Amino acid sequence: MALTGVLRPGHAQLRVLDLEEGVRHYRDVLGLVETGRDASGRVYFKAWDERDHNSLILRQADQAGVDFVGFKVANKATLDQLEADLKAYGLSTERIPAGDLMETGERVRFKIPTGHLIELYAEKKMVGNGLPSVNPAPWGKDSEVGIAPLRFDHCLLYGPNVNQTLDLFTKVLGFTLTEYVTLPDGETKGALWLTCGIKAHDIAFVEHPEPGKLHHLSFLLESWEKVLRAGDIMSMNKVPIDIGPTRHGVTRGTTIYAWDPSGNRFETFCGGTQPYPDWDPIHWTWEGLGEGGGLDYPQRKLHETFLTVVT
Amino acid sequence: MALTGVLRPGHAQLRVLDLEEGVRHYRDVLGLVETGRDASGRVYFKAWDERDHNSLILRQADQAGVDFVGFKVANKATLDQLEADLKAYGLSTERIPAGDLMETGERVRFKIPTGHLIELYAEKKMVGNGLPSVNPAPWGKDSEVGIAPLRFDHCLLYGPNVNQTLDLFTKVLGFTLTEYVTLPDGETKGALWLTCGIKAHDIAFVEHPEPGKLHHLSFLLESWEKVLRAGDIMSMNKVPIDIGPTRHGVTRGTTIYAWDPSGNRFETFCGGTQPYPDWDPIHWTWEGLGEGGGLDYPQRKLHETFLTVVT
Amino acid sequence: MALTGVLRPGHAQLRVLDLEEGVRHYRDVLGLVETGRDASGRVYFKAWDERDHNSLILRQADQAGVDFVGFKVANKATLDQLEADLKAYGLSTERIPAGDLMETGERVRFKIPTGHLIELYAEKKMVGNGLPSVNPAPWGKDSEVGIAPLRFDHCLLYGPNVNQTLDLFTKVLGFTLTEYVTLPDGETKGALWLTCGIKAHDIAFVEHPEPGKLHHLSFLLESWEKVLRAGDIMSMNKVPIDIGPTRHGVTRGTTIYAWDPSGNRFETFCGGTQPYPDWDPIHWTWEGLGEGGGLDYPQRKLHETFLTVVT
Amino acid sequence: MALTGVLRPGHAQLRVLDLEEGVRHYRDVLGLVETGRDASGRVYFKAWDERDHNSLILRQADQAGVDFVGFKVANKATLDQLEADLKAYGLSTERIPAGDLMETGERVRFKIPTGHLIELYAEKKMVGNGLPSVNPAPWGKDSEVGIAPLRFDHCLLYGPNVNQTLDLFTKVLGFTLTEYVTLPDGETKGALWLTCGIKAHDIAFVEHPEPGKLHHLSFLLESWEKVLRAGDIMSMNKVPIDIGPTRHGVTRGTTIYAWDPSGNRFETFCGGTQPYPDWDPIHWTWEGLGEGGGLDYPQRKLHETFLTVVT
Repeated sequence: MALTGVLRPGHAQLRVLDLEEGVRHYRDVLGLVETGRDASGRVYFKAWDERDHNSLILRQADQAGVDFVGFKVANKATLDQLEADLKAYGLSTERIPAGDLMETGERVRFKIPTGHLIELYAEKKMVGNGLPSVNPAPWGKDSEVGIAPLRFDHCLLYGPNVNQTLDLFTKVLGFTLTEYVTLPDGETKGALWLTCGIKAHDIAFVEHPEPGKLHHLSFLLESWEKVLRAGDIMSMNKVPIDIGPTRHGVTRGTTIYAWDPSGNRFETFCGGTQPYPDWDPIHWTWEGLGEGGGLDYPQRKLHETFLTVVT
Repeated sequence: MALTGVLRPGHAQLRVLDLEEGVRHYRDVLGLVETGRDASGRVYFKAWDERDHNSLILRQADQAGVDFVGFKVANKATLDQLEADLKAYGLSTERIPAGDLMETGERVRFKIPTGHLIELYAEKKMVGNGLPSVNPAPWGKDSEVGIAPLRFDHCLLYGPNVNQTLDLFTKVLGFTLTEYVTLPDGETKGALWLTCGIKAHDIAFVEHPEPGKLHHLSFLLESWEKVLRAGDIMSMNKVPIDIGPTRHGVTRGTTIYAWDPSGNRFETFCGGTQPYPDWDPIHWTWEGLGEGGGLDYPQRKLHETFLTVVT
Repeated sequence: MALTGVLRPGHAQLRVLDLEEGVRHYRDVLGLVETGRDASGRVYFKAWDERDHNSLILRQADQAGVDFVGFKVANKATLDQLEADLKAYGLSTERIPAGDLMETGERVRFKIPTGHLIELYAEKKMVGNGLPSVNPAPWGKDSEVGIAPLRFDHCLLYGPNVNQTLDLFTKVLGFTLTEYVTLPDGETKGALWLTCGIKAHDIAFVEHPEPGKLHHLSFLLESWEKVLRAGDIMSMNKVPIDIGPTRHGVTRGTTIYAWDPSGNRFETFCGGTQPYPDWDPIHWTWEGLGEGGGLDYPQRKLHETFLTVVT
Repeated sequence: MALTGVLRPGHAQLRVLDLEEGVRHYRDVLGLVETGRDASGRVYFKAWDERDHNSLILRQADQAGVDFVGFKVANKATLDQLEADLKAYGLSTERIPAGDLMETGERVRFKIPTGHLIELYAEKKMVGNGLPSVNPAPWGKDSEVGIAPLRFDHCLLYGPNVNQTLDLFTKVLGFTLTEYVTLPDGETKGALWLTCGIKAHDIAFVEHPEPGKLHHLSFLLESWEKVLRAGDIMSMNKVPIDIGPTRHGVTRGTTIYAWDPSGNRFETFCGGTQPYPDWDPIHWTWEGLGEGGGLDYPQRKLHETFLTVVT
C-alpha cells in the first residue's frame, strides 16, 4: 500500500569516450561521490544524499549514450511479480545475476518499444548519505563538493513508439502520466513525462526515429540559487551549456542542460510539481512546447538542440 | 502499483472561535482560496495549487482544535478494502454519506489510539488549480494573494498511544515511518513522522496525555524566500509567531510556526527530504529533538511551547 | 564628505512608439508606479521603493530610444559647481527650467562625446515609497504588482568616443571606473562601467559608431528568485526576452534582458559587486566578454544581439 | 566627488579570551581568510571578497570586546583634513605609526563620546580577493569555506552620548543618518544607524550607560539562502545563536546574531536598503523597535538580550 511496486529510478549506465575524463566530470564538477570500480573497469557513483551504493555507472565505449536504466522495486516478490506481468504483456525478460553491478542484486532486464533497455531490481546495498543515522545535520561535507546534487532524479529518452511505451509503463509498471506534448496533429502524444511516485517525472520519452537514444540524465538540486551555483561551476570548468538557467513550463522545474565531455547531455534540475495519480495529466500542444514555454518558459522558444542532439 | 492505497492528506476540519475572523485569517493572510460555505455554516478553502475542491474546512465552535483529518485514497475499491482492513484490525468505522462535506464523496471515519478522528474518502470534486489544463503558466493570479501556499501538506497531532498509532498507520494504512524521536529512556518512540508517499511527512504524532489535540496544520511553500515572505506577511497582519523562520533538523524543512486568531497553530513549510519506503527511518534522541537541533536546527533548542501549547 | 557630488541616476526619458502600449508595459508588466502625466502628454513613473516623484518618463515618438538621462546631485551649490566644471572642461551646458519635468527642479543639460544628452539636477519632489516614515514594513502593496523593481538602477549607452566619455565622467563628474572591456587590440577600452557611489554601475558605455543609442535601462530586483519571477511575468505577458535569466561575469549581477513593445531593451537586474573608489577596476578582454563569461557567465558566449541591437 | 572622505569600515580589533579558539571560530566557522600574525601575537583576517589585507584583528585579552574600529579614507590628504576637522571640533587625536597594524599605514585615532576608539587611515595593502584581475569568475575557492561572508560590513556599538556622537559623525566625518530609534519619551534618539556611503549602515550606536561596549561586528552575505546556510554551519559547530534567522525591520536586512567563543556577538547579515544622503532617515519609536518589528520583523519582539548583552 501507499508507495509500492516500482519505487524510483535507481541507476543508469552511461557510455563515455574517455573514462578518466568522465570521472573528472561526474566526480569533480557534478560532484557525485565515487563509490567503486569493478573488474570490467566501470566506475560507480552516487549523489551525496542517496542511500544506495550507486546510481550512475560510467563505462568507456566508442560511442556515447546510455546502456540501460534501472528502477528499484519494493522487494523481491514485487520483482518476481513484475517480471511475470511483463512476460504476460508479451515482453521478453532477462535475469542478470546479482553482483554483475557492484552491490546490486539480481536484475530483470527488458527492451521497451523505444529501444531502450530498462531494468528492475530489488536489492542494492544501503551505504547511507554520509550523515549519522541519529540526530543528523541537514547536510555535510559532500554537499558542497562540485555541483553536488541530492540524487539522480530522472532521465529523458528518445526513441520510436512512445505511445506503446506509455501503455507499458502505465499498465504494467504502474507509472502515472503527468504531462505530455501532442504532435502538430493535435492528438498523437509525442512526448511523455511519467512518475512512479509523486515526482514531476521519474522517466520521460520523446518520439524519435532512432531507437535507444539518450536526451539527458537529470540530477536534483535544492533551490534555484543552487541552479545558479551549478551554472557558475559549469562555467568555471568550461562545461558547455545547452539551455539555461531557466524554468521549464513542463513540470515547472528550473534547469540547466549541459553536456559532459563525451557529449552526453545532463541536467541540473530543481523543483517541479508533485502530481498525484488521480490528477489529469497536463497537456502541452506542439506550439506549447516551444512558443508556449513548455521547454523554456521565460524565453518561449524551442531551442533547436532539444529535438536534434541526443547520444 | 507505484502510488496506491492512501494518496495524501486531503482535508482537515478546524474549529475556530469566530468564523469570520478565521475566514479573514485563512483567506486573506494565509491566502487560501475560499471555495464554498455549506448549510451548517462551515467555510471551505483550498490552497491555490490543489486541484480538489477543498482541503481546509472551518467550523465555528466554543473550543479551538481539529474535528477530523481526511485522507484521499486511490479509488472506491481501495476505500472498501481499507475499511475492511481497519475492521479486521479491530477498529470501528463509520460511513459518512457523500455530500456531508461539500463536493466530497462518502467517507470512512474511525478513531485512532491518539483519540483523533481520521477519515478516508475516494472522491472529491476536481476543480483545478486556476491554471489552464493546456499549456499552463507555472503560477497565476492566486499565487501571490497572501502567503499563498501550494497545498495543505501535513498535520502534527498530539495524543496518547502513539506507538499503537504507528502500528495502525504502517500495518493497515500503508504509511512509512520516516523519522522518530525516542523519549529520555532512549527506546520508546515519543514522536513520529509518517508518509503515505515520498514526502518527509503526511502526518505526525507526538505522545501527549490528553487525546485528540492539534499541534499544527502545515501548508507548503516553494522556497526559503517564500518562508521569509510568509513571515513578513504574518508580521504585517500581526499574526503571532511561535517559532521561526528557521530550519527543522527533523525533515530538514524550513518553517514558521504561528497561531491563527483562535489559537490553532499553523505552519508554513518548505523543503524536506523525499524518503522512500525502503529507507531506514531517522532516529532523533530526546536531546536530539532539542539541543540536537531536531526542532530548531540553527538554535538547537526545544522551545517550551512545542511540547505544551496545543488546541 | 562621504557621498557628495553626483548621487545617482535619477531619471531617463524614453521614446516609445505607442504611448498607451508603453504605459501598459512599464506599469502593468514591469510594475512601475505611474505618478503623473504632463501637458505635453509625457507619462511619469517611479519604482515602488524610490522616494523621488519620477525616474522614468515615456514620450511618444516615431523612433524608439532615450532622449536624456538625468543624475541627481547633492544640492544646488553642487549643481552650480558641476556646471562650472563642465564648462571649464570645454562642454556647452544648457539650463532647463524647473517644472519642465514634473516635480523636478532646474536641470543642467550637456551632450557627452558618445552623443547622449546627460542632465544634472538638484531637486525632485520626494513623494516617499508608499511605506510610513515611522515604523515601516519592509515592503507593501506596490511591491508585488508586476515585476516591481526597487529602483531604476543604471543604463547602458552605445556611442562613439567612450574613452573621452570616461575622462569626462571620472575627471569632472567624480565617477569611478569599476570594470572595462578592452577591444581585440588588448589596450583600447571599448566598454566601461562607472559608478558615482559604490554600485557595480550607475552608467555604462559601449563603443559604437552611431551616437546617442540606448542599449538598455536597468531596474533593480532583490534576489535571484525575483529574477526568475520577472522571467515568469515577462513570459505570461509575452515580453520577448533577449538574454537570461543568467549571471553576468561583468558586475557578477544576475539578469534578464528583454524588449519593451517599442523595441527598447530593458534589464531586470539583481546583485552585483559594491566597489570602492580605491579599488582597481576589473579588466575584461574582448574574448573575456564572450567566451570568458563577461556577458553570460554560465553560457560563456557573446550573444549576437548584445553588440548589434540598440535603439 | 561622488564617494569621498570616509569610504568604509576597514578594520576592527577584537579581544578574545583564547586566541586559538578565536582563530578557529573566525577562520574555520565564519570562514574568514587568515592573512597574518604579528610580533605581538595578533592574528589578522580578511573576508574573501575584500581586497585589503585585513579587516578583523584578534587580540588575546582578559576581557572580550572591541579595542578600536578603523575607517578607510580616500587618501592621505583626506586623512590630514579629517584630523584637522576633528581637532577643530574639539577632539584630541593620536597618530599611530604605519606598520603598527600589519600592512596598514598611519592611523589617526580619537575617542568618541560613546567611549569607543575610532581610527581613520588612508593606506592598507591591497592583496586582492583571490580572483584574477582579468576575466574573473564571480567567486572562487575561498567562497565556500565556512560561512564565508563577502566583507566586514558594519558594527553596532553601545555607549553613552549617542546624540553627541551623531553630531560628530554627521558634521565632521560626513556620515548620513539612515534610521534611528527614539526613546520612550518619543523625542530623544536612543539608537542610530549611519552610513558613509549608500549602505543601510556602516556603523550604528545604541545609548547605554557603560562606555566603549561592543554589541556586534557584522559580516555580509549574498542572500537569504546564505543566511540559512550560515545558521546551519553555526549549528554544526555548536555556535550559540542569539536571534534569527530573521529579518530586521530596521534596515530590512536579514540576519543571524550569534556569539563567538569569547562572548562577542557577531552578525551574518544580508540585504538592507541603499539609502542616499538626500533621504529623510527612517524613524522607529521605542515600541517600534520591539512590537513594531524593528529588531525582529516577523516576531515583533524586543529580545531581552538585545539591550543587555554586550562585551
